[in-house]
Formats: sequence, C-alpha cells, structure tokens
Amino acid sequence: MKKWVYVFNVQNRTDGNRDQKNLLGGKGANLAEMAALGLPVPCGITISTEACLDFYKQGRQISPEIREQVLTELRNIETHLGKKFGDDKNPLLFSVRSGARVSMPGMMDTVLNLGMNDKTVEAVARQTNNERFAWDSYRRFIQMFSNVVLELNMELLEHELESMKKSKGTHNDTDLTAEDLKKLVSIYKKIVEKEKGHAFPQDPHEQLWHSIGAVFNSWNNDRALTYRNLYGYSHDWGTAVNVQSMVFGNMGEDCATGVCFTRNPSNGEKALYGEYLVNAQGEDVVAGIRTPGPIDDNNRNDTNRDQKSLKDIMPKAYAELIAICDKLEHHYKDMQDIEFTIEKNKLYMLQCRNGKRTAFAALKIAVDLVNEKLLTTNEAVMRVKPEDLNQLLHPRLDPKAKRVVLGKGLPASPGAAVGRICLTPDKALETKANKEKALLVRIETSPEDLAGMVAAEGILTARGGMTSHAAVVARGMGKPCVAGCSALSVDYKGKTATIGNKTYKEGDFLSLDGATGEIMEGKIPTIEAGITDDFAKFMKWADETRKLRIRTNADTPHDAEVAVNFGAEGIGLCRTEHMFFAADRILAVREMIFADNTADREKALDKLLPFQRDDFAGIFRAMKGRPVNIRLLDPPLHEFLPHEEHDKQELSKSLKISMQEVEKRNQALFEFNPMLGHRGCRLAITYPEIYKMQARAIIEAALLVTKEGGEVHPEIMIPLVLGKKELEMLRKDVEDVAAAVFKEKGKSIPYKVGTMIEIPRAAITSPEIAPIADFFSFGTNDLTQTTMGISRDDSGKFLPVYVEKGIWECDPFVSIDESGVGFLMKHTVTEGKKANSKIHIGICGEHGGDPKSINFCHTIGLDYVSCSPFRVPIARLAAAQAALADKDKK
Amino acid sequence: MKKWVYVFNVQNRTDGNRDQKNLLGGKGANLAEMAALGLPVPCGITISTEACLDFYKQGRQISPEIREQVLTELRNIETHLGKKFGDDKNPLLFSVRSGARVSMPGMMDTVLNLGMNDKTVEAVARQTNNERFAWDSYRRFIQMFSNVVLELNMELLEHELESMKKSKGTHNDTDLTAEDLKKLVSIYKKIVEKEKGHAFPQDPHEQLWHSIGAVFNSWNNDRALTYRNLYGYSHDWGTAVNVQSMVFGNMGEDCATGVCFTRNPSNGEKALYGEYLVNAQGEDVVAGIRTPGPIDDNNRNDTNRDQKSLKDIMPKAYAELIAICDKLEHHYKDMQDIEFTIEKNKLYMLQCRNGKRTAFAALKIAVDLVNEKLLTTNEAVMRVKPEDLNQLLHPRLDPKAKRVVLGKGLPASPGAAVGRICLTPDKALETKANKEKALLVRIETSPEDLAGMVAAEGILTARGGMTSHAAVVARGMGKPCVAGCSALSVDYKGKTATIGNKTYKEGDFLSLDGATGEIMEGKIPTIEAGITDDFAKFMKWADETRKLRIRTNADTPHDAEVAVNFGAEGIGLCRTEHMFFAADRILAVREMIFADNTADREKALDKLLPFQRDDFAGIFRAMKGRPVNIRLLDPPLHEFLPHEEHDKQELSKSLKISMQEVEKRNQALFEFNPMLGHRGCRLAITYPEIYKMQARAIIEAALLVTKEGGEVHPEIMIPLVLGKKELEMLRKDVEDVAAAVFKEKGKSIPYKVGTMIEIPRAAITSPEIAPIADFFSFGTNDLTQTTMGISRDDSGKFLPVYVEKGIWECDPFVSIDESGVGFLMKHTVTEGKKANSKIHIGICGEHGGDPKSINFCHTIGLDYVSCSPFRVPIARLAAAQAALADKDKK
Repeated sequence: MKKWVYVFNVQNRTDGNRDQKNLLGGKGANLAEMAALGLPVPCGITISTEACLDFYKQGRQISPEIREQVLTELRNIETHLGKKFGDDKNPLLFSVRSGARVSMPGMMDTVLNLGMNDKTVEAVARQTNNERFAWDSYRRFIQMFSNVVLELNMELLEHELESMKKSKGTHNDTDLTAEDLKKLVSIYKKIVEKEKGHAFPQDPHEQLWHSIGAVFNSWNNDRALTYRNLYGYSHDWGTAVNVQSMVFGNMGEDCATGVCFTRNPSNGEKALYGEYLVNAQGEDVVAGIRTPGPIDDNNRNDTNRDQKSLKDIMPKAYAELIAICDKLEHHYKDMQDIEFTIEKNKLYMLQCRNGKRTAFAALKIAVDLVNEKLLTTNEAVMRVKPEDLNQLLHPRLDPKAKRVVLGKGLPASPGAAVGRICLTPDKALETKANKEKALLVRIETSPEDLAGMVAAEGILTARGGMTSHAAVVARGMGKPCVAGCSALSVDYKGKTATIGNKTYKEGDFLSLDGATGEIMEGKIPTIEAGITDDFAKFMKWADETRKLRIRTNADTPHDAEVAVNFGAEGIGLCRTEHMFFAADRILAVREMIFADNTADREKALDKLLPFQRDDFAGIFRAMKGRPVNIRLLDPPLHEFLPHEEHDKQELSKSLKISMQEVEKRNQALFEFNPMLGHRGCRLAITYPEIYKMQARAIIEAALLVTKEGGEVHPEIMIPLVLGKKELEMLRKDVEDVAAAVFKEKGKSIPYKVGTMIEIPRAAITSPEIAPIADFFSFGTNDLTQTTMGISRDDSGKFLPVYVEKGIWECDPFVSIDESGVGFLMKHTVTEGKKANSKIHIGICGEHGGDPKSINFCHTIGLDYVSCSPFRVPIARLAAAQAALADKDKK
Repeated sequence: MKKWVYVFNVQNRTDGNRDQKNLLGGKGANLAEMAALGLPVPCGITISTEACLDFYKQGRQISPEIREQVLTELRNIETHLGKKFGDDKNPLLFSVRSGARVSMPGMMDTVLNLGMNDKTVEAVARQTNNERFAWDSYRRFIQMFSNVVLELNMELLEHELESMKKSKGTHNDTDLTAEDLKKLVSIYKKIVEKEKGHAFPQDPHEQLWHSIGAVFNSWNNDRALTYRNLYGYSHDWGTAVNVQSMVFGNMGEDCATGVCFTRNPSNGEKALYGEYLVNAQGEDVVAGIRTPGPIDDNNRNDTNRDQKSLKDIMPKAYAELIAICDKLEHHYKDMQDIEFTIEKNKLYMLQCRNGKRTAFAALKIAVDLVNEKLLTTNEAVMRVKPEDLNQLLHPRLDPKAKRVVLGKGLPASPGAAVGRICLTPDKALETKANKEKALLVRIETSPEDLAGMVAAEGILTARGGMTSHAAVVARGMGKPCVAGCSALSVDYKGKTATIGNKTYKEGDFLSLDGATGEIMEGKIPTIEAGITDDFAKFMKWADETRKLRIRTNADTPHDAEVAVNFGAEGIGLCRTEHMFFAADRILAVREMIFADNTADREKALDKLLPFQRDDFAGIFRAMKGRPVNIRLLDPPLHEFLPHEEHDKQELSKSLKISMQEVEKRNQALFEFNPMLGHRGCRLAITYPEIYKMQARAIIEAALLVTKEGGEVHPEIMIPLVLGKKELEMLRKDVEDVAAAVFKEKGKSIPYKVGTMIEIPRAAITSPEIAPIADFFSFGTNDLTQTTMGISRDDSGKFLPVYVEKGIWECDPFVSIDESGVGFLMKHTVTEGKKANSKIHIGICGEHGGDPKSINFCHTIGLDYVSCSPFRVPIARLAAAQAALADKDKK
C-alpha cells in the first residue's frame, strides 16, 4: 500500500525529513526535521502532495485508502497524547494547514481549533478552567471553517462581531466576555444554517475531511494560480496538508505566540530578530490587532519601546528559544525564520524555514557563516541570488517613504531616479546644466536621444519592451529605466505627460523605481547603494569557482572603466553606431548616406575616420590590454536620417540639396520591417567602403595605443552574417585594409575577425562558417526575434498574455528560450567547435546578464558571456553558481 | 601524363563523345559525337575545360605540357589533310572557337581563318584560284584577331572598311575587289602597328597560342560573367577551345553556309526549318549582311519568297542534309540545331546541339517523339521545362509587334496585359464597368485594393518583391503583374504615373509583359494561350509518374474551379482574411477591432459568421469532396483599418466614435515590424473568440454542404504556431466549437486540425507539436523571412547584389534556400513523422509552385505541394520530373 500519510513526533516516531519538501511540502518537511532533532514540536501528521494530486485525480475526493491512513495515525496521536478527537471530556483539537514545496504566503487556507463543537467547547472550558478561552476558540473555529470550507460571505459574521463590540462599547475582541462569545457562537450558527441550508457540522470527523479537502481545493484557488503564474511555479506540484495537535498561545497570561529570525533579515547582523504577543493565537500577530512586543532589548523600536520583552516576562522560554535558534542555525547552516507558541510557559516550535532577507543581509550572512565555519565558500556562493546584487549596486527608493503609484511600466533597468520631467533630450541637457535633476520622458527613445539619456537621472517611455532602445541603453549606463508604460501618453506639442488620468507639465517632479517599474508623483527620498568589504570577499569566492569569462557591452571609455571596476575581463560588444550620432559626426554620416556613388561615399567616410579612430583608441586605453570586441556598423541607414522638420532643413542646407531630395531619400530608405531589412553586413555587401573605413579606424587606433606602450587585443565582429560567403568576402576586405595599414605604419599587431550568430540560418550553417571565423558571438536578442518570429518592440500586445496563460514560462527576451533558441545555440557550439577547435564562442545579447541564461550558456560550453557594466557582478555570481550546480550534477 | 587535348575525325580517330560536355564543352562533345557517327566533320582538336582551369592556375599561361599535346595533334591533322600550318604552298587554316558546357551565345570569342599571313594569303589565292577570296579571308582574320586578341578599338578598322566602300560607291563588302581588299589589309596592318606598337603577328603558331589564350580569357570577360550570374552558372567551369580545320562557304557560288533546326522550333512541326547564304562565311548569316534564302519551299516567308532554296540550287547537298538531320534525330532522340557549311558542293557539319524551342514546340515535339517511338513517356516528361508551361497557360504579347520598353520591374506574374492606367481600385472598377480594359498602377497594393485587382487586366507596382502582396495575389488570380518597378513613380494627387522620364495620365494605355517584367507604351497586340490535346496527353504521363500530390492556394470558389480544371487535387491554403475585405463585411471587422471587451467583439464577430459560412460553403462545393485546408485569420489587425481620411471619417460615423478615437486605435495598433508582430495564432491567444467564430463558420458550412449531398473534407489550419502549447489550446477551442455545432445540428463529420510551420521555433520543436497535429504545412515565405532574417518587402535594396555577387545562387523567395530553410524543413519532416507516423505534410508557401523547390520537397518526403491555380500544371510536371530524377539516382 502506498504511503500517503507521514507522522512527526508521535510515539517516538517521525517519518519525514527536510529533504522531502516535494513530498511533504516545506512546512511538513521542516516539522519532521525539527521533531527528529528532538525539538518541542506538537505531534501531528503530514498528508503528502501526492495525496493532493490523487484528490484531483479522483474528481476532488479523498480516496478511502488515504482516509484509512489518516485515521490510523490519528488514533496513534490520541494514544500518544492521551486525548480523544471529539471526546466530551478530554478532547483533542487540531490545526489543518497547507504546505507546498515552496512558500506561497497567504495564498492557501488554514483551519485552527478543529474538533470544537457544542460539546467539546464545554470540555475545554472545564479542562482549562477558562470559559472565555474555550468559547473564543469555538468562535474563531466557526469563523475560519465557514470561510474556508463553507465559503460563506465573511462579512456576515464579521458584522455580528463588530455589532457585539459596538454594543459593549469596545474595539478589542479581548474585551468580550464568555457570555458575549457564547451569544456570538449562537448567532454565527444561525447565520450558517440560513445561508447554507444546513446546520454547522458538529461531527469532528466531518469537520476534518472537509477541512483537508478545502486545503487541497485551495491549491487551485484564483490567488494561488495567479501567484504561481507570477513566480513561474508549476501547477502540477500540489500541496501537502499538515494536521497538527493544537497548542494554545491564547490560554492566558502565561501563554504567548511569536515569530522570529535567527539573524537580522534586513542588515544580516547576528542577533535574534522578532516579536511576540502574550495571550494570543498566531493569527493575531499577522492581523495586527495589538502591537507585538520585542523578543529582547535588541529588538526595541519606536512602536514597542515601552513594552516588556519576551526575555523579561518569560526568561526560561526565551533562553530555550535562543538555544533552539542556535541549534537550528547549526543544523540548517542558514538563518531561520521561526514560528513558536508558548502554552503555559512551555515553548513549542510550529515552523522553521530559511528566512527571506535583503540582498545586503544575504551577503553578510553568507560571509559570516563562512567565518563561523558553518559554510564552505562554495556553499556561501550559492546563498545569494545573483539578481539581488542589483540592490547593492543601485540606489533605491527609501522603502519607508510613502509612495503614490501613478502607474507601472516594465522594470527595464533597476535603481531609483527622481527628477524633473523633460520631454526632449535638449530639455534634459538644459535641466542638467542648471544643476537640476532631469527625468527623460519619451514615447520611445532612439539613438538621437543619447545625449539626453546621458544627462538624465532616469528614463521613462510609453512604448517598447525590456530590450527596447531605452532599456538596453539605460542598463548599459546603469541608469534606472521604466519602459513601455502603457498608461503614459506624451504630448510633445503641449509639453505635458499624462499618466492614467493625471497630467503633468514639463518640469514637474516624478520618481521612478526601475526595479519594480513603478512611477510615483513628486520627490521620494532615496538610499544610496552600499558596497562593502564583504562584497569583495564574496565576489572573489565566486570568481574562483566559475568557468565562464565575463565581458561587458560598452561603447565608451567611461562605460568600459565602470565595467572593469565591476570585474569585466574584456569587452564582448562595442557598438559602433552610437558613435555616429554625436553632433560633430552625424552630418558626415548623413553626407555618406546621401552620396550617389562610391567616391562620394568614401569622401564622407574619410571625415568619419579620425573620429572613429579616437573612439577606439579611448576604449583600448580604458581596457588596458583586455580583449575588445568591436561590432561594425549594424543598424539600417535610415536610423541616421533626421526626423524633425528643422533637422531636415538643416541637412538640406548643409549638403546643398533640395528638401525634396531629402524627403525622397528618406522615403527611398523606408522599410516595412527594418529589423529584417538592409542592415548589418548587408550594408557592407552593398557598400564595402563603410566597413573598410571602420576596419582602418580600428587598426590605426590599435597601432596608436601600442605605440604609446599599451597592449591591445582587437576583435572585429561582422554582424548579421547568414552564411560562409558573406564572412569570406568581408573578412578579406578587413584583412586587406589591415595589411595596408600595417605596411603604411611599418608595424603589425595580431587581431581577430569573427561574426555574430544572430539569425537562424547562421546558426544552422555554423559548421561552414566556423573555419573562417576566429570567434562567434551569439546575438540572442535578434536570434530570439527571428527564431520565434517576434519583434521585441511589438511584443507588448501578446507577450504578457503568453506568460500569463503559461504558454511561456518567462519572457524569452529576458531568459533564453532553451528549446527553440537554445537548440540553435547548442547546434552552433557543438558543430562550430567540431569544425574549428580553436573557435572562441560567447554571447553579447541581453541574455548575457540574465542568471538563468548564464547557467544555460555554461551548460552548453560557451567561453564567455558579455553584459552591461552594472550586470557584470551579477554575471560573475551566476557563472559561479552555474559551475557549482554543474559540479553537483556530476 | 594528363590528357588535355582530344581529337575528332583525325586519322580515323575521335577521342570524345557527347557525354563529355563538362570536359569538352557542348560544341566539342557534339563534334566528337558526330565524327564518331561518321558524319562529315572537318577534323580538329578540343582543348579541354580542365586546360582552361589550368590556364588560370598558371596565371593565365598555357602550360608547356598542353602546348606539347596541341602541337602533336596539329601534326597529325597536317598528315591527315596533307596540308601544313603556315606553309607557303599548301597552308592549313584553322578556326578557334570557345565551347563551354552550356551554350553562352555571343558571350565568348571566336577567331576564323587562323594561319593567314602575307605568305599564306598568296598560297590560298593560288590554290583556290580566287585572289579576292584569299584577301577577303586575310582581311577578316586581321579584323577578328585584332578584336579578340589584340583588343584593338574595332571602330578604327571598321571606319576604314566603310571609307573604302564609300569611295567605291557601294554598301556591300562583296563589291570590293581583290585589289581593294589588299589595300585594306595594308591599312589594317599599319593601324595595328601604330596602336599596338608592334607589327601584326605573321607567325601562325604565335597567332594560335594567342588565340587560344584569348578564348580562355574570354571565359571571364564582363559579358560572360554577367551572363553566368544571370543564369546562375558556376564561374568555375571554364571553357574548352575547339581548333578546327577551316572549310569555306565563301569560296564561290558552289559554296554556302547555313543553320537549321530538324523541326520547327516555334510550333514543333516535323519539317526542316532553316536558312542559308551562298558564298558566305557563318558570321555573315548572323551579321545579316544579306537576306538568307530558304532551305526548301517549306521555309518560304515574306522576306525570302523570291530567293532560290538550297534544295533548288544544291539538291545533292540538300538531300545529304536531310539524311543527316534524320540520323541525328534518331541518334540524339531530340530536335537538333545544326550549323553547316558547303564547300564546293560538299557538305560539312560544324555544330549540332539540342535546339531551343518554344514551350508549345517543346510539348508537341515531346509528344510526337513518343508517337514516333523515339522516346518513352518518362523521357518525354523530362523534355519540357515546367516553367515553360506558363507560355501555354497565359496570353502573350505578340512577339512580332514593336515594343517601346519604358522600364522593367520584377516579372511577378506571367502573361500579357494591355489597358488604361488606373491609379485607384475604384478607377479600375469604373473602367471595367465602362467595358474598357484597366491596368491597376499603384505604389504598392494592400488587401484593400482587392476589388480593383479583380477588375484589372494586370497590375503594376513601384514597390515590393516577387512575393509582395501584388505579386502573390496576381499569381493566385493568374493575372499578369510587374512588381517593384523602381523607375515608376505614382502621383495619386496629380493622377499621373511617371516611368523613367515619361509621364502618363490616368486613362492612358500601357502594356505589361509579366513574364519579362517589361512595361511598354500604348497598346501591343496579344496572342491567346493555346492548350491542345497534346497538353492533356503529356500531363497524363506526368501525373502517372509523380509521387507528390498537387494542391492549390485558392480563396474563392472561382479560383478553386480554375485550379481543379488545371488538375488540383485539393486546396492547400485557403486564406480567410481576403474574405474580410469585401465591402459588406469590412465594417463588422472594424467594429470587432474597436471592441473594448469580449462581449462586444463577439457581437461584431456574430455579424461576420454568416458571410464566412457562405464563403466556405462555396469553396466546399467547388472542390467537390477534395480536401480543403483553411487557414484561420493571419494578418495583424491594423491591416483592416482604414488609411484614407474619408474612410476614417466614415468609420467614425458608422461606429459612432470620435475621429480622435479612430486615430488612437490606429496608433495603438501600430507596429515597428508587423511581420513579427501581433498576428497569426497570437490573435487567437489574446482574442480566442475570433478563431472560434471561424471554426464555427467552417463546421456549419461543412454540415450545410453535406446536407446538400456534397462531400466535404475540411482541414483547419492554425498559423504562426511556435510550439506545442499554442496548438494544444487552440485545437481545444476548435474541438469545443465543433462538438457544440455537431450537437446543435445532430450530425457530425470528420475534420482535421493542424498547423503551419513557418517560424524556425516551430520547425525546431516539431517533434513536440507533431503528436497533436493532423497535418503540417510549410509556410516557406515566412519561414524564409525568419530563418534568413530578411523582410521580403525590403529585400530589394540588397537581394539583387547578393545574387550578383554570387553569395546566393538565386532569390531565396523564389527557390527554397536548401541549406538554411531546407535544414529546418528536413528536420521537421524527419522528426515530425517519427513523432506522429500519421501526420500529413505539405507546403503552401510560394515555393510550392517553383520547380526547383518542388524537387526539394519531393526529396525530403513531403506529401503534397500547394501553389496558385495557374501554377498547378507546372507543379504537376515538376513533381513528375523530381520523381524521375530520384528514380535515376537510385
């Protein structure tokens, strides 16, 4: 017979342990573990998650076999405790609690005091010699059961409770007498009978089966479904049910209930952190009926300064709690989040689990536990979520400050930004020049807005996704960004921005939280990022572990320096097009675009050459000999043309051509689907002189910096290649230019030429491309767009629905779509390395900074990942965790 | 030692045969074959194509080994003919001709009369007793050699020839005397010396090596390169060189030269077809110096009615020619194209090859050859190019009519169209209503133009490629279309169309040739398509051979009927969106788009349901029980919104919403890359009610037609699926609707549900999708766009350059890119059939009508191809040829 029911602390027997979370849920597994450790856990049973799945399989019925096992163990508990379920002399009462493999706080249902009825309430009153306690427990049970099992409208009962309190002239439940509560119970029962057409069930077994069924049902209530969709948890796990003998914190002044963390979850300090309530049930702490008191003096704050501490009033129980916390930390080797109840001065443990904590605390605790020799450095490295490092690297809005949230967009780049609304890049520049803080608020951004983005504290856009221009550039700069806020509309003419139904003028203040995507009115105070010695120590452990190298995507010497300070080991993507937008160059770029023939095009390109050479020299210097991967021009040429009327007129004047001609060229370059248009190496196949100029600028810059005594490792990357022939042709162009420059300067340096893999065809034909490439770099943004046929900028209308309906586990532009895009990547790495064993393979798409994707990159054998400067530490940690997880598997 | 040189007809020796075209070129291989057959071929040698490749390998030098072999065989020829190269008594003269594996008419160089110099000219004069002949031959030789080898500006020599004729008061070369020609030779030699700095070479061996080198060089002259790029021939093949002893058709009145086909290449009639010139060299026929005479009475026409026929003046040679033609046809089992020379009444064969012919002739000849028991039916099926059937299915412009070509666009849909320029669909409708012929001339077309396209004789657009909307729809309708004519600009306001620098008013006449892409001024007479009994017989042979089933892409009962008449065995793609554009429906469609909630959307969809049901019922009836594959709604919703101001105002009025609201919705639906946007099944994931309405319409229509006594096999196709889950969800929606309809009507019918494979991810994950799909259909248009990252509508700026530079062999939107897109297709077929052995797989992209792609589809094991109605016969033939080629391989 299959085992469905597991006991803990029953007649010296405990069936489960902490490793059985999938079977027993987190709560059940840890109750068993604590019981086995000899800690004071009220005895009980855990009905397994498999029983939950069986419940659904049977059409929401508990099968006879499971019922049988439950009854058998209940009898054992009766024997163990010397009490009897439903007995009118010495009744046994239970709590019924859900417990899934992951914590889903408040999502599922709980019933306490189960076993109460018209008879047992009298017995409890007699036994405890506390009639008020007995009737209050019965009153609470009816309320919970009616809510959870009978699905009664709770307002009906609460209204009666409030009326009763009102008639007694009080606000506190505790002021109600036993008589009041008796009356309430009687009223409650009448309401139940009226609303449900049957009496409140008096049979404890009927109460039990209904409660267990209700907990199983609650696995699929709306809240739980939404919660799991939100966190990407499977709907197929099911929940366990814990049926545990009751202990009471509300039996009198020698009773209490409380929660605590074994260390401070906010700053990581090693000291008990918690609060308690005398004469209360656990629910009361959460409900905030009374202000809880401090566990000890260390936990005093403004609200509880005058209350007695647990240590003061129950020193024995407190000492026992301290000892248990210490035991648990040593056992679990982690900070624990604990629930306890003290019944008549005796301490009982109701729950323990690894405590949630801030990133700052996580880091400190991990480092401290290594210092305390509880953890190895490898174990410590696994203890901090890479994504959480964001909190350490960016300023945050003060969590204590009041937020009036106007609307929400995508959390495109983390950090807090507060500033004046600027609707144009010029306005942002002007605001900054006036020593004021600017927020750039745009419908969408384009490369023309770059200077304004640099000047702004943060960026807010109405359109575009997590990998839109605004998002990518902001992350690169480490600037907060909220993108694609559909509630935002911008009126450039009227100089106003409307969020929801509130309209703001240019110059008004807004605050952004780039980590949540929230937009707030006015100025909200911020907290600076705080990097500590612990951080450096921790990252060193990560670096010692990882196999992947970490590079950065950086287009300027400044970004390159930031990234190196964060630990970047090279540049994985230096985009050259951003350099084309600077005011002193854009005219030459446009002259090049308007050229009718190769000679004129070359003349315009000659003007750009010195600028590009300086750009590259600056970056080479900043990287001090680390490899620098430069991608040649990628975007379609129309991106460089002016869109505003006055810019067009200026261009017409400068190039001495008619406005008609300007319009005509604009129209001629129009594209239906620019993402799939005349861009990348297609530009160089049609106009080879563009890449030749860039290759010359790179090689000349490299020789220049070498001459200064610097070390340079340039890698020249050809974008959007589809197959072998394009790379063959363009590689030859680069080599010819390099040879010419070497001859001119009488000196040569080594350099590499390779290609991006960003189109399915390139991945498919990678075995043919590999022999002529020194490196591959996955452009997973475009590879995702083409493999899935999704324009990231247009995906906002359906992508969230896909995630919500569970078609995709997450946004494929955030984490690599492993079965689609990942298939092509695996194919490329396997076949590419077979065809060219020396080839070096990395990733420079946005996914290079995403921990889940980094893990995938490690698994398929990439050499490096490249990400924006501020994500470099995150990538270092994610790479270390990937290596450790891999080791565990082997 | 490697054999570089092959002789024919030398001392009873012939080295080559007709199967060695790759080695000896077409001309050389056939000369050898004729020699071996015992036909009168002047003896000579063929220097192989391998020697040409060696020539380039040696830096454009003829290697000593090859020279040695040439000289050896020349000595054998001298012995054989009893003449001597360069001899001043009995000189041997040669022609030097190129000959690649495929015919490249006029692309490469030829030198005749080689061996002429100041001494041999005298010997020839003496031997022939014809001084004029000798000096004319020398004069011709100098001209050709100077042109081909010395690369002299030809105008210099031609100017002298013209002056000489002028001074003699004549227009004909033949009026020049021996003295005149002597003088000319002397002048020619002086010009050569002056221009080239050295005397005209007198050494026959020097002449020979230079001429051979010049022919090798001509393989890579600009004309040849362009030609090969145009036809997709490899540049690596090289050309052979034929050095053949001269025979002369210009030695007197008992000499002649001519060309003929063994059957009529225009209509296929079984009768010699050709012309000849007395006393002339081959070049003279081509140059058109004199009007050639008819071979026999059967060849008389307006221009040669009064001339004597070859049969009249040289009956013996004529009889011999007839016999040889008959022998060649029996030997080659095909119609031959022959060049011959008669020297002093003796017939010599200079060339034979399979003759080029019209599609009509090809078909008739193939059928006749089967009747004559020269060919099996399988062999006959291989004799007609599938693409050529177009000529039989569409009207053509009269080839004899004068064409003033204004410009050229893409040959997007074959056939001839003549009509009045109409710049709007309304104008086209109006013109047709007035019983006038309309040509729809647009910058580009959109589904809104559909009614105008139906009304027009043909369509001309300025933008868009071979698979643009205009092209796809026109091919579907079998209407001529020239797309993407960059020389065309349209001024809708001014109501004019400009082509190049000529401007036409709306209402002016233009003529289009959809097979060449040419646009002509005015009205050009047309010739109707002519389908014969031979056609039916021939297609029956094809059908007996092929493995692939042939379906059609048809959206209307009319198209479906046309396709069935052409032999379609089902519908492979019925697009439902075109139905949405009809005037009586578009408002309901827009109402649906403007709905804010599901209920309103359903209300609008309810209005569309009866229309769609009628649409489908009509198509089911037309297909008479053949399978009908219906694709549910695919395009993004913004395609259905009005673009013109007055349409927007009408919509605002009809829906009772403000213009602002109309604009806002238009903007909200805007997409950067609509190809990768909110379309296909993504519409149904977000708005499930759309597909549910369509599924209901299909099932209700099927039951309706079944009730009428018809047979119906509906296949419901979900577009743009990326993976298993989308299909799972949407299949369930369809099944729920079908079950509901079956219950309502008390009757059910079988139907299938499947998906398109048109996104790389779908192909990659096909093993997961296959078990829940009854069929797959490759949407290779979109699959090519996404696999290659190319928007077909934007590819015009670089795709031609890619083809020209040889990066792609052909336009991947015309023939499947086998190594990229084909890889995914193969993966899908192999893995898909493994996962679901019952799955049915076809193709419905434009490639389904392309012979090369059909061959690929056969190879990878598809079950059917689907193409536009007018391509059905082409597909049937291509499928048959694929099956035969496959059989050959096995």
